Amino acid sequence: MSTSLLLTNGRIYTMNPAQPEASAVAIRDGRILAVGNDDEIAALADGLSERIDLQGRCVTPGLVDAHVHFQHFALSLGNVDLDGAPTRRVALDRIAAFAAEQRGTGWLSGRGWSQGAWPDHAFPTAADLDAIVPDRPVYLAHKSGHAAWVNSLALRMARVDETTADPPGGQIQRDAAGRPTGILLEDAMTLVAAHIPRPTTDELAEAMRRAQRYCWSVGLTGLHDFDGRDCFRALQVLREAGELGLRVVKNVPVYRLEYALGVGLRSGFGDDWLRIGGVKIFADGALGSRTAAMLAPYEGEPDNRGIVVTDKEEMVEKARQASAGGLGMTIHAIGDRANHDVLDMYELLRREERERGPARLRHRIEHVQVIHPDDMHRLAELGIIASMQPIHATSDMDMADRNWGERARYSYAWRTMWDSGALVVFGSDAPVERIDPLPGIHAAVTRRRADGRPGPDGWFPEQRLTMAETIFGFTTAAALTAGQEKHQGTIAPTKLADLTIFERDLFVVPPDELLDVGIAGTIVDGVFRHRAF
Amino acid sequence: MSTSLLLTNGRIYTMNPAQPEASAVAIRDGRILAVGNDDEIAALADGLSERIDLQGRCVTPGLVDAHVHFQHFALSLGNVDLDGAPTRRVALDRIAAFAAEQRGTGWLSGRGWSQGAWPDHAFPTAADLDAIVPDRPVYLAHKSGHAAWVNSLALRMARVDETTADPPGGQIQRDAAGRPTGILLEDAMTLVAAHIPRPTTDELAEAMRRAQRYCWSVGLTGLHDFDGRDCFRALQVLREAGELGLRVVKNVPVYRLEYALGVGLRSGFGDDWLRIGGVKIFADGALGSRTAAMLAPYEGEPDNRGIVVTDKEEMVEKARQASAGGLGMTIHAIGDRANHDVLDMYELLRREERERGPARLRHRIEHVQVIHPDDMHRLAELGIIASMQPIHATSDMDMADRNWGERARYSYAWRTMWDSGALVVFGSDAPVERIDPLPGIHAAVTRRRADGRPGPDGWFPEQRLTMAETIFGFTTAAALTAGQEKHQGTIAPTKLADLTIFERDLFVVPPDELLDVGIAGTIVDGVFRHRAF
Repeated sequence: MSTSLLLTNGRIYTMNPAQPEASAVAIRDGRILAVGNDDEIAALADGLSERIDLQGRCVTPGLVDAHVHFQHFALSLGNVDLDGAPTRRVALDRIAAFAAEQRGTGWLSGRGWSQGAWPDHAFPTAADLDAIVPDRPVYLAHKSGHAAWVNSLALRMARVDETTADPPGGQIQRDAAGRPTGILLEDAMTLVAAHIPRPTTDELAEAMRRAQRYCWSVGLTGLHDFDGRDCFRALQVLREAGELGLRVVKNVPVYRLEYALGVGLRSGFGDDWLRIGGVKIFADGALGSRTAAMLAPYEGEPDNRGIVVTDKEEMVEKARQASAGGLGMTIHAIGDRANHDVLDMYELLRREERERGPARLRHRIEHVQVIHPDDMHRLAELGIIASMQPIHATSDMDMADRNWGERARYSYAWRTMWDSGALVVFGSDAPVERIDPLPGIHAAVTRRRADGRPGPDGWFPEQRLTMAETIFGFTTAAALTAGQEKHQGTIAPTKLADLTIFERDLFVVPPDELLDVGIAGTIVDGVFRHRAF
Repeated sequence: MSTSLLLTNGRIYTMNPAQPEASAVAIRDGRILAVGNDDEIAALADGLSERIDLQGRCVTPGLVDAHVHFQHFALSLGNVDLDGAPTRRVALDRIAAFAAEQRGTGWLSGRGWSQGAWPDHAFPTAADLDAIVPDRPVYLAHKSGHAAWVNSLALRMARVDETTADPPGGQIQRDAAGRPTGILLEDAMTLVAAHIPRPTTDELAEAMRRAQRYCWSVGLTGLHDFDGRDCFRALQVLREAGELGLRVVKNVPVYRLEYALGVGLRSGFGDDWLRIGGVKIFADGALGSRTAAMLAPYEGEPDNRGIVVTDKEEMVEKARQASAGGLGMTIHAIGDRANHDVLDMYELLRREERERGPARLRHRIEHVQVIHPDDMHRLAELGIIASMQPIHATSDMDMADRNWGERARYSYAWRTMWDSGALVVFGSDAPVERIDPLPGIHAAVTRRRADGRPGPDGWFPEQRLTMAETIFGFTTAAALTAGQEKHQGTIAPTKLADLTIFERDLFVVPPDELLDVGIAGTIVDGVFRHRAF
């Protein structure tokens, strides 16, 4: 009960307006006991206290990623990443190194190769793989997702040989003698992919143990997940075993809504480790594929306004059901048309909620990627949370300029959102982007890429946030979004002891150097989960 | 954080084998900080401590009722109880007193009147009710459930008048002029009943606030609920508001199983206030209606072996689905045939679970009311929990003798269960019986009714338990059943501070006087919820 931790000699940014800065914090039984100066905190020491000198390091409330696909992220860590491999040789070296490190007899999976980027443009073969991984099946997806490179064992297990006919919509690449080469195109990919076992709940839980360690190493203490039921089950398995060491908000895909309502589950049910969030629904497509729903056509494509995945009427129906059952909504909206429709829907929903009683549910829009100027004020007015991913702005800026032209100035507009009074919460969308929050923090305050592009001021620099606003988005805002502000989101007495410790002071380091600031420690529930000092 | 409570000068039965008795306990932040003698505990006092002299009172871990229909119980507290009213006048006086106390404009409901027990055997009338409750609709069910007595406003609201035809299977009692008298028979009852609004979630939550206070007043700190989705929702509403002050395990009706599985809910999800239990399924009927499924016919009815509500195959199917999804089972089985079938099912299920990995789920049988001698050892062998209700034994002993004859000696056989090594957990089945645990404790140790029947030794006295065993059934066993033994069920450091304080020492009071032992205090989460000293 009385184990305690005293952190002294730090630069502690509490995010607590009543006491914004401190040098020391005392932790007991997983909670913040006191915040103050070194002398005050040292006076709380008893025989069981562990005293830690932060040596001037910077501390914030534990960073939370408010938009992660945690199952996919966890599984991706068990796959070999061939993205950017400049030659077949480099790809094979990566595979060999990966196989040597992650031993086993099961499937070795990966993705990201692209023969088009290799000097000879030639497809690789099963024989290439057999030479380095003969004894376990290998399945490697092309960067485009439209081809797979497999080894001979994988072909044998799938019974794909010279007698196998091409499936409809697919092609088995063959040599002169008609034997499969190891490349499967389009729908032929599933001939082998169907043999890769879907991970069991226990296997997922195991992958999440590793993913959790990775999250700690980059300073994360919590996340809001957007994967499905298998993910929820595996998270519960970890929690039951007392092994879950991240604060997880589990959102529910809309195709599970009837089940959530059927059993009576409400947003917020659960505990400090794992709790139910909102219902995830897609309003539209994405930027890269030019399927985000736009009010006006895409640049250079006058007939394309993107795709409405869920129309307003269906959204209203689902949101009404969810809201009446005590479930919040969390709606993917990229294009300005999608955001407009979602706001119309929320306007109606809020009116109906007010008629039933005081509005309580914390609804959100995921991404808010580009929004019409006339709609910008509406999130704040309706009390809708803007869940944004700073790293998307810098990763996708060229695409945004190309696809949206002038409208790009209204994209990734977190400063506008913030100034309108909307709650802005930050995340990564991992594994689409890296889960590491520091690149996101860097993007939010600089609007520049790691390489400095597009120049000193960044891309639409008027949208930059201050460091304090950005840290708020990764900490306090996440707690508010989850209805957990009583227990999380600031460093203050009685709050859960979740802290991130940085090697350098985020508030004084030159913005260009933010990407190199190391994570010195990650404390969740009063326990060091990662410590590098 | 540091609010604390020091209880001294008590007789504290901790149920912790390492330290079975103590005189004092210290509580901080909702948890037990220390257990010991008065001097040891007094030494822990600081400026914020509240010190309470127990004046020799008896303390046990907080009592938990492991079988309650909490929604029904809560709503029953808002209804007038006419059971046993010896005359129409007494019934009307009760109604008037109830209406005076529970003011409002909504429906006044109740049950239990029986004109057959009144001197004149005459049906009461709407006019009788109009004289005392003219301004709100009244609906009072007959003790048999086959008739309703309503007032004129209720008839008007339901538009039942002299022009209304009798519905199929029902009769509107009428006077000489053809006007409804206020008595509705059989299916005519629904003409009015259909107008009584189903309580909203907020109304249920409000009823539960009152029910919770009642639970505290009789010494309960927790319960395992067997009602449905509305109940679960209302419990979540209380929890969200921080008002839930009982530790609740919420079981899921089998007709909600597909939803629970569909959303991925597992047993144990939730927090210390509200967590998911198992899936409730009915194997058979009941004793009183002679529908409990028996291996041999009912006494005097050679063709009746009761009713199998869910056959073995269907039970296997549901239990398999539940178990694979991480949900335990909790199966209603009254008759010896039902218990036999359920044990066969569990034998198969346990085998399959072992093949998947270490068995973890805590499956239970509800009631285990009569069991064949050959099956008695099987619960222990299979690790199945016997969830029993001591008060049923003494309430139903005459019926058991009459319906089961010689087999009654194998009924309510908690001593046999205990000696076999099965985990025996106790509850009340409220509102079928009173929720108060003391009558249950009395029945478990005496096998006698309050009036002393059937005599000094009690009914099948070989089945009596000791007080320690009985308290175990209401405390530690409930925690074990819910997988909460790490945090609940004993008075020991770090456990949740849930305690029941009795006016007299249960372990020395003559058994006949147990029913008169007052509840001096109920502490949940370190806070006095009821205090009468």
